[in-house]
Amino acid sequence: MRISELSRLSGVSVTTIKYYLREGLLPPGRQTAATQAEYDEQHLRRLRLIRALVGVRGLPVSTTRDVLNALAQHISDTHRVLGLALGAIQLSEEPDAGSPESAVVDALVEELGWQVHQEAPARAALARTLTSLSTLGTPLDRQMLLPYARLAEQTAVLDLDQLDGIGDPLELAERALLLTVLMEPALLALRRMAQENESARRHGEP
Amino acid sequence: MRISELSRLSGVSVTTIKYYLREGLLPPGRQTAATQAEYDEQHLRRLRLIRALVGVRGLPVSTTRDVLNALAQHISDTHRVLGLALGAIQLSEEPDAGSPESAVVDALVEELGWQVHQEAPARAALARTLTSLSTLGTPLDRQMLLPYARLAEQTAVLDLDQLDGIGDPLELAERALLLTVLMEPALLALRRMAQENESARRHGEP
Repeated sequence: MRISELSRLSGVSVTTIKYYLREGLLPPGRQTAATQAEYDEQHLRRLRLIRALVGVRGLPVSTTRDVLNALAQHISDTHRVLGLALGAIQLSEEPDAGSPESAVVDALVEELGWQVHQEAPARAALARTLTSLSTLGTPLDRQMLLPYARLAEQTAVLDLDQLDGIGDPLELAERALLLTVLMEPALLALRRMAQENESARRHGEP
Repeated sequence: MRISELSRLSGVSVTTIKYYLREGLLPPGRQTAATQAEYDEQHLRRLRLIRALVGVRGLPVSTTRDVLNALAQHISDTHRVLGLALGAIQLSEEPDAGSPESAVVDALVEELGWQVHQEAPARAALARTLTSLSTLGTPLDRQMLLPYARLAEQTAVLDLDQLDGIGDPLELAERALLLTVLMEPALLALRRMAQENESARRHGEP
């Protein structure tokens, strides 16, 4: 397909596609004339993944290139492809220094028997939230977190089920990213609605 | 207590307390001398709620005053107090115009049998997310959303359990708000960790 068709199918403008080509995020097409090139399905898949990494996850272009290179090296390792797409595996960053709350997170993960990298950004994010709650006088301990974590386990099963059977690693990475990042506001909205319903059930007028 | 003690206990600076007094968010203390006033427990509770509304939920000061006034009128109606604190009940804003996705949300709420206001902002937030997912080629239909909604129901039960037995409506509103808003990043972090674990379970090396 021509670059205009690639743009139409991916929803990425021709100008942006040319920028990704110059930056080496997207491999060149097959030259068919001095100013014309042909692109294929792999270009489209890669472009959709780039759009998800840059536009949805908000990665800088240089980091996106690193993620794409790392993906290319581990294309047959589904667990690693998912980890790279979802950001569980950091490309570069120091692990969090040991706050009292990060010890709570470590103990929680241990009790649940979860396999989670020590450097996973989600560990630090959870510890930071526990610190805020504690500072504002509503601390949450491990026993209060446990039932929430059990529900998160069930959510993750639904998430992974949705990715089942996607063979192409680029498509898998893109879908995992869109479903995880874009679904976040949806899950929070569902919680708010469920809270309103539960409050009506307990405290509302009949 | 003096204003300095009120500041220490609430974590709000004296300058900011004086601003809230001028703006009428906080009622004046009992004057004990020309330049001195005494504050009590009710001032502290109200100040903590203001801090949560302004600092955590990010409301403008004028809207915060409206919320506080509305709360004062419905102080014995727990369902309404929670609704005002959590933003389920809008003080002013047009309901979302009927997009195809808002019809999906309506059908979902109907199927679940949830009691959720037609104007609840969470309905619009969910519809917007469904639109984004659909635009990016990974649409989610009602059948796929249902199991997520069932998990949200269980999350809301845990949430409301944590607010059980709080008698004072100002304290109830503040706790509801902190637990809901501040826990959001924690719940998302738990989901990411659970995804990593589930991916390791399904695709990782033994």
